[in-house]
Amino acid sequence: MGQFCFGVDVGGTTIKLGLFNNNGNILDKWEIPTRTIDHGCHILPDIRKAVERKIEERALLLGDCVGVGVGVPGPVGQDGTVYTAVNLGWGRINVNKELGTPLALPVKTANDANVAALGEMWQGGAIGHRNIVLVTLGTGVGGGIIIDGKIVSGSRGAGGEIGHMHVKDEEEIACNCGNKGCLEQYASATGIVRLAKEMLEQSKEKSVLKGRKISAKTVFDAVKQRDALAIMVVEKFGEYLGKALAQIASVCDPEIFVLGGGVSKAGDILIEYVSKYYKKYAFETCRNAKFALAKLENDAGIYGSAKLVLE
Amino acid sequence: MGQFCFGVDVGGTTIKLGLFNNNGNILDKWEIPTRTIDHGCHILPDIRKAVERKIEERALLLGDCVGVGVGVPGPVGQDGTVYTAVNLGWGRINVNKELGTPLALPVKTANDANVAALGEMWQGGAIGHRNIVLVTLGTGVGGGIIIDGKIVSGSRGAGGEIGHMHVKDEEEIACNCGNKGCLEQYASATGIVRLAKEMLEQSKEKSVLKGRKISAKTVFDAVKQRDALAIMVVEKFGEYLGKALAQIASVCDPEIFVLGGGVSKAGDILIEYVSKYYKKYAFETCRNAKFALAKLENDAGIYGSAKLVLE
Repeated sequence: MGQFCFGVDVGGTTIKLGLFNNNGNILDKWEIPTRTIDHGCHILPDIRKAVERKIEERALLLGDCVGVGVGVPGPVGQDGTVYTAVNLGWGRINVNKELGTPLALPVKTANDANVAALGEMWQGGAIGHRNIVLVTLGTGVGGGIIIDGKIVSGSRGAGGEIGHMHVKDEEEIACNCGNKGCLEQYASATGIVRLAKEMLEQSKEKSVLKGRKISAKTVFDAVKQRDALAIMVVEKFGEYLGKALAQIASVCDPEIFVLGGGVSKAGDILIEYVSKYYKKYAFETCRNAKFALAKLENDAGIYGSAKLVLE
Repeated sequence: MGQFCFGVDVGGTTIKLGLFNNNGNILDKWEIPTRTIDHGCHILPDIRKAVERKIEERALLLGDCVGVGVGVPGPVGQDGTVYTAVNLGWGRINVNKELGTPLALPVKTANDANVAALGEMWQGGAIGHRNIVLVTLGTGVGGGIIIDGKIVSGSRGAGGEIGHMHVKDEEEIACNCGNKGCLEQYASATGIVRLAKEMLEQSKEKSVLKGRKISAKTVFDAVKQRDALAIMVVEKFGEYLGKALAQIASVCDPEIFVLGGGVSKAGDILIEYVSKYYKKYAFETCRNAKFALAKLENDAGIYGSAKLVLE
C-alpha cells in the first residue's frame, strides 16, 4: 500500500487512533480506553501495542511507516516534551522518546488543540490555507494557531491558549485557570449557559428558554426561532468572541478562522454572530478574514497528529 | 573581508543604510534622503546607487555580497510585495524584484517594525531568544513578532499590528486607522500625553506636570520624582499595555517582550509598570515571560534588514 502513518489523539477517557496513507486518506480508525491509573504509566505502552497490532493485522511493512503523530491534552515543547497533562496523570515526559524508542519509529507530539488545527488545515474546514486559527468551543475554549503551515506551540507550549485571554475586567468568579475574566468564561458552552441564566434572571421578557434546562444548543435553537432573549445572549457571546478574534488578528493576521467544538454544531448562525463583531473590532487590513466551521469533528486530532509526521 | 550584506531601513524622510559582515558586525552606516516625489519612484534607484557606490568605495567584490535586506513602512507579503506605503508615496510594488533585478543581488523585504524585531533578536535586547515580541512605543504603537526565529508577517502583511488591538469600548475619538479604542490611542507617546492631559483636567491634586508642556518624557520624569498624578497616568498606561501583552502571550507565548521606541528611553521604570499589569492578566504558563528594553534604537531596522538576507 506504500507509505502510511498513524495519528493518535490522547484524551482523558479514550485514545483515538487512525491509520492514514500519505495522501491524507484515512484507512482505519479505532479507539482504546485511556488508562490513567498509576500516573498514566500504561498509556504509552498501550498506544505502542495498538500500533504494533494494527501493523500486524494489516500485514504492513514497518519500513513503510513514516511515523506516529500524537496529540496530548497539555503544553508540549518542540522536542516532544509534555510539561504536564493533568487529565492523563502525567508529569513531565518526552513522548517522542518514550514512545518512539520502543516502537523504533519516528514519533512527533504536540498539544491536542494545536494538532486539531493542523488537521482542519490539512483535510477539514481550512483546506488550502497556511495561516489559520482554530477556535474550539466546547466545555472550555481551546485554540490552535498555524502560521505558514506550522503549529505555533510557543516558548512554554502555551501558544494558542486563547481561552485564557483576558476579556472582561469586572468579573467576580474565577476561571479554572485561576484568573478572572477569561474568554472561556463567556464563549464556551458553559459560558453561553451562564450568560443565558444571568440574562433570564435579569429580564422580564418572555422567552422559550424560561423554565427549561439551558444548554448552548437550546440557546442557539431559540435564536433560530427568533427568541429575543436568546438573541441577546448570542449577541453578547458573539461580541466577546468576535472582539477576541479581532485582537488575535492584530497579532498573527490569519487567512481564516475555523470554529469547532460542540458549540459549532449550531452551524452558520454561529459564524453570523461572531463575524459581525469581528468585523466591528478588527484592524482594517484583517477585516476580510474568512470564517468557516470545522469539518472533522472528533477526528481532527487524529488527522492533525498524522500530518505532524508527514511534514 | 569575506561575505557581507546591506541592511536598508526606508523611512518617510531618510533612508538608513548599513554595511554588515555575516557575523553581524556593522562596518559602516550612513543615510540618504527619501525622495517621496513622483509617487516615490526615485526611492529604489537611490538605494541601488547608494549600495553600488559603497561597494565601489570600499573595493568590495560583488560576488561576496549575500544580498540587500529592506525594511519598509507598510504591509509586505512574503514574496516582497509591498501592498501600500503611504509615507513613501507607494502603491503596490514588489521590492525584491524592482530592486533585486537591476542590482543583480538577492533582495529581501519586510515590514519595518517586523524587521526591527528581527534586529533586536539578532544583536539587541533579545539576543539568544527565538520567540520574541517587539513593542515600539513612539508616536504610534508598532509591533514585530518573531516565532521560531522567523518574522510573522501574516496573510496580508498585518502580523504584529498590535497598536490596533481593540482595548477600550468606551471611546469617542477615532484612531488614525478609523477604529475606536485602539491600544495606540493610550500606549503611544501621544497616548500618554492624552492620558496625562485628561487626568490633569479631572484632578485637583498638585502635580509638577501642571502648567507645563506635557510629553511622555516629562510624565516619566515626574514619576521618577514620585509625582502622584504622573504615577496615576503611568499606572493607567501600564494597565492598557500590560493587559494587551498578556493577550498576545495567549496567542504566541513569547519568551521575551522587548520595549522600544522613544517612550522606552524612560528606562527600567517602564518595564516596572508594564510587567506588573502583564503578570496580573497573563495566563499562568506565560506569566514569567521576560521583559527587556530595546538596545539598537534607530539602528534596529538596518540590523534586522541585514539579518533578513543572512538567514
